[in-house]
Amino acid sequence: MTVIVTLLTDFGSSDGYVAEVKGSILRLAPDAVLVDVSHDVTPGDVAGAAYVLGRTWTAFPEGTVHVAVVDPGVGTGRRALAAEAGGHGFVAPDNGVLSRVLEGRKARVIALAVPADASPVFHGRDVFAPVAARLARGESLDSLGTEIGDPVSLPAPRLERRGGDLVGEVEHVDRFGTLVTSLPGRGVADGAVVRVGAHVLVLRRTFGDVPPGDAVAFVGSGGAVEIAVREGRADAALGAARGVEVRATARSGGTA
Amino acid sequence: MTVIVTLLTDFGSSDGYVAEVKGSILRLAPDAVLVDVSHDVTPGDVAGAAYVLGRTWTAFPEGTVHVAVVDPGVGTGRRALAAEAGGHGFVAPDNGVLSRVLEGRKARVIALAVPADASPVFHGRDVFAPVAARLARGESLDSLGTEIGDPVSLPAPRLERRGGDLVGEVEHVDRFGTLVTSLPGRGVADGAVVRVGAHVLVLRRTFGDVPPGDAVAFVGSGGAVEIAVREGRADAALGAARGVEVRATARSGGTA
Amino acid sequence: MTVIVTLLTDFGSSDGYVAEVKGSILRLAPDAVLVDVSHDVTPGDVAGAAYVLGRTWTAFPEGTVHVAVVDPGVGTGRRALAAEAGGHGFVAPDNGVLSRVLEGRKARVIALAVPADASPVFHGRDVFAPVAARLARGESLDSLGTEIGDPVSLPAPRLERRGGDLVGEVEHVDRFGTLVTSLPGRGVADGAVVRVGAHVLVLRRTFGDVPPGDAVAFVGSGGAVEIAVREGRADAALGAARGVEVRATARSGGTA
Repeated sequence: MTVIVTLLTDFGSSDGYVAEVKGSILRLAPDAVLVDVSHDVTPGDVAGAAYVLGRTWTAFPEGTVHVAVVDPGVGTGRRALAAEAGGHGFVAPDNGVLSRVLEGRKARVIALAVPADASPVFHGRDVFAPVAARLARGESLDSLGTEIGDPVSLPAPRLERRGGDLVGEVEHVDRFGTLVTSLPGRGVADGAVVRVGAHVLVLRRTFGDVPPGDAVAFVGSGGAVEIAVREGRADAALGAARGVEVRATARSGGTA
Repeated sequence: MTVIVTLLTDFGSSDGYVAEVKGSILRLAPDAVLVDVSHDVTPGDVAGAAYVLGRTWTAFPEGTVHVAVVDPGVGTGRRALAAEAGGHGFVAPDNGVLSRVLEGRKARVIALAVPADASPVFHGRDVFAPVAARLARGESLDSLGTEIGDPVSLPAPRLERRGGDLVGEVEHVDRFGTLVTSLPGRGVADGAVVRVGAHVLVLRRTFGDVPPGDAVAFVGSGGAVEIAVREGRADAALGAARGVEVRATARSGGTA
Repeated sequence: MTVIVTLLTDFGSSDGYVAEVKGSILRLAPDAVLVDVSHDVTPGDVAGAAYVLGRTWTAFPEGTVHVAVVDPGVGTGRRALAAEAGGHGFVAPDNGVLSRVLEGRKARVIALAVPADASPVFHGRDVFAPVAARLARGESLDSLGTEIGDPVSLPAPRLERRGGDLVGEVEHVDRFGTLVTSLPGRGVADGAVVRVGAHVLVLRRTFGDVPPGDAVAFVGSGGAVEIAVREGRADAALGAARGVEVRATARSGGTA
């Protein structure tokens, strides 16, 4: 059976490091289908990688193995993990990069044995890739190390009720300058008022509902409230970045 | 039978959007061989994507399915298309991105039914990817929607006779700063004089025919006249960009 | 049998050139598994590509075919090569890009016949890709051209004894700003003193052995001495770039 292995790193595209990881996987699992998620995570941005992984993995079929190596702690005592959640496999350093996958989800997490001959500075190639290959070949999680109950977890993105409002934050700014917030779309009714900084927007179905150049809030493809500028960049137009507060208010008479 | 599916988008490489498209394809067509054309099209640059698609698709074997999602109109009323031309399949928004494929070529074009649960802002994942998978699995075009006769078409790049000259424009500037023009190589004889701005060049066989640092015109690998600077960048050296006029004159006594 | 074909070019990711190469390979070898090494080599940087290829290829299983097309001399008289070394196949222009693979290694090198209809400016698609496909299909090297004994070779990176010291240079600066040197890790004992410019470092096991922000020397994942700044960039912090001298001195009483 062919198994997909996805790869998410901060290795960039100029050095061949990603290819070394792939070679290491294909040595042990020659039939694996490799899919790049991204290798352009800002170096060391564990929270950014956690966000991308957290929304991408669900697009793949059950049985897929996801390798996430944004690993500023490689070469320190941080643990190396494999996990199973939602019918998918995961391989990653124990630094919180799996937070968005594991939070609120039944999971099994294993601390991996690190081979003595692994380079202390390239666990992506020497630890995570071989483990991903073994999972892709159908080996059991238990054969890979010892179960743990305390993987490192990043704080969940802000989400709280304040008065009748839902208050969250910009969790991610994407390639198009669109602000992806921590406000769940299912909690915010159509016509709700969304505030970011001094900007006040009305939740619409899609950015096609406003003229080019206008800002608009809508429920994005990951299920969260997003703020975009049609044919423009919301980050620049609204002066917003990751972490900025976002607040949704129900229409008077409606439910936020 | 294994089918190749190529992907051309402006999704960039930092968000995982391309991976979501791939996951969506592989769910339905696990044997598809996915090949990236580019994901670094300038956001919303439909004409740029049309150029890249127009020269890339012919490098693939018949039966390949090409997905082109540069789609600033997603979430508006624009139609979603599938098409067959030259023995290949195509899936794209109806905004002209297929222009260079369809112009002057026998083709069938279908307006796709959009599933009710598709995200209005991510047709790449929810509309185009599943259709690409179905084409890759051998489903017929007719099962996907209704045939149309009026797909949106971009104006053809400029190409006209003026006196004895062929007049065109810079259609694309590539990674190396090379100017790809709309002048067909078969219309311009060796030794012809090519003018761009105040620069006058003689058509040679290849840029190896001039010393490093010199500008040269030649018939490029896509069949069009190109202007390069050997071991340099023609866009910078000649101050030229997309849309700039280019003119070819036959050698006196020759035929342009 | 499935064969891996790796691709290393300076074609970038915006034009579709890499896809044309892949289409050309898959036409002849539809079962080949294509793996990108990098397409972001600085245009024309043969030495940089030679470095990346020189460390990446060994991560792949025997029988892999490696295509390296950084080829500023395409369209000149430079030869086109195929080679076998270490049980792997290689396809590349004869400009030294294979230097790090061939030096000190038993190899067979073939000068390729160039098809008459190959574009003089795109041997990647029209010469190297078809040859890679033929190697991937198991065709013999001898069927592809004539054996040669004098492939172009780049000078080896500097490495010499001066007094009791090992003197080398920065051979590569990676995505993280880490300086990869030409000093072999096996020649430098733990605790050795490594000098680059005015900076004096002690060789440690890994960058986890110093506090964040500190510079550290260690034996990197490619087997060479590297200099990094933990959670920072060594190139910026130490003002060093490719070619800068690096010197290792044994601890007093030890062996460098």
